Amino acid sequence: MVVKNQIKLIKSLHQKKYRNLHGLFLVEGVKTVEELLDSGLRVYGIFTTDVSILKGRGDYQVLISESELKQMSSLKNPNTVLGVFYKPETWKVDFKDWVVALDNVSDPGNLGTIIRLCDWFGISHLVCSKDTVDCYNPKVLQATMGSIARVHVGYMDLSQFLRESGQQVFGAFMDGQSIYGAKLPSSGILVMGNEAHGISEEIRALCHKKIGIPQFGKLTAESLNVATATAVLLNELRR
Amino acid sequence: MVVKNQIKLIKSLHQKKYRNLHGLFLVEGVKTVEELLDSGLRVYGIFTTDVSILKGRGDYQVLISESELKQMSSLKNPNTVLGVFYKPETWKVDFKDWVVALDNVSDPGNLGTIIRLCDWFGISHLVCSKDTVDCYNPKVLQATMGSIARVHVGYMDLSQFLRESGQQVFGAFMDGQSIYGAKLPSSGILVMGNEAHGISEEIRALCHKKIGIPQFGKLTAESLNVATATAVLLNELRR
Repeated sequence: MVVKNQIKLIKSLHQKKYRNLHGLFLVEGVKTVEELLDSGLRVYGIFTTDVSILKGRGDYQVLISESELKQMSSLKNPNTVLGVFYKPETWKVDFKDWVVALDNVSDPGNLGTIIRLCDWFGISHLVCSKDTVDCYNPKVLQATMGSIARVHVGYMDLSQFLRESGQQVFGAFMDGQSIYGAKLPSSGILVMGNEAHGISEEIRALCHKKIGIPQFGKLTAESLNVATATAVLLNELRR
Repeated sequence: MVVKNQIKLIKSLHQKKYRNLHGLFLVEGVKTVEELLDSGLRVYGIFTTDVSILKGRGDYQVLISESELKQMSSLKNPNTVLGVFYKPETWKVDFKDWVVALDNVSDPGNLGTIIRLCDWFGISHLVCSKDTVDCYNPKVLQATMGSIARVHVGYMDLSQFLRESGQQVFGAFMDGQSIYGAKLPSSGILVMGNEAHGISEEIRALCHKKIGIPQFGKLTAESLNVATATAVLLNELRR
């Protein structure tokens, strides 16, 4: 059974302020909830209108009504299962491999896609500037699928992080040097910028190399979307 | 001045049925309207609440009120300028270069991003199965930016198209052979599949080579998003 105060608490997790306050976040849908259960993240509770859906997970499950699910959910059409998890502990960045850093990425879908790309390409640390969209935003979690359980995402002062990292910093720029010819070390930091404005002046000054993706069509002023550019650059780092 | 019937016509263009009936489509926002004006597409009319915004385009402009714009627009917050254009004539696919083919891609944002990627990587022909989302859907056009003016997008029976093309057909599959090792000709057809189900059985049977993007993280059942996978594969075709 779920009590009124619990519904209120879970509903409050739609907002970043309360996710930070309670150290909790929510995900929806069977597949994502299952992946997070498998990931070892600490579970607050699994709320479902159908306890037969998640097999062998009896310990965490709470049976709720459709109307209770509707109250908790961030979706227009809630999806049977809603999981609430404790946010992972903070972690230290491991510089043995490439690290991806985001400077003010603001679209939840883009951040979600980038987390999923990091997972695919085996990047385990993603560092976000404090003004990057919250990775526990329900729209981000929807786009990451279960990848949020496998990629460490942290928010920090990006400028300070880059200065103190001791790593080579590669920034993605429209007018950067072609990635095809670039000599890439086995570890470093790849910085991707904001959707509309790219990498900020402050962070640009901290980039040791400016790299870019050659354009093959008729040259236009447009750039690639930040998530697709990240896809191409991570592929180049790994191939 | 704009008459009531014109507002009704333009509003009807939010629906595919009426876009097909009238052979017209609408785009919103100064930048996209400007790019389409530059592209040589035939113009039906440019409707704006501020005629000073599009300089030197006096011939097509119609001054409208905020409330008229609101009635025509497909956006919650309309964006000063709305352009209506004639859909381009049909064209013949040019097989001298790579052609991208989509099998039932259903998300408008994904199709928009793929059109933008084709533009970036100089792919001038994009062939869509008839069940792929309409490229003149306002949400697609928003994601393409002006690229819709530079990439020929056509809808046809994909199976027939592949059979009659005489080209090598490369299909993107989760379990395909690594693209890194693949010998890629200077022209061919790259097929990308549906978001949830991948390439259909019928089209799979017509693929000569099954290619894929190696996964570097912990292996999971998840695939890359179709737009980011297209980004990586087009980069591999061009590099």
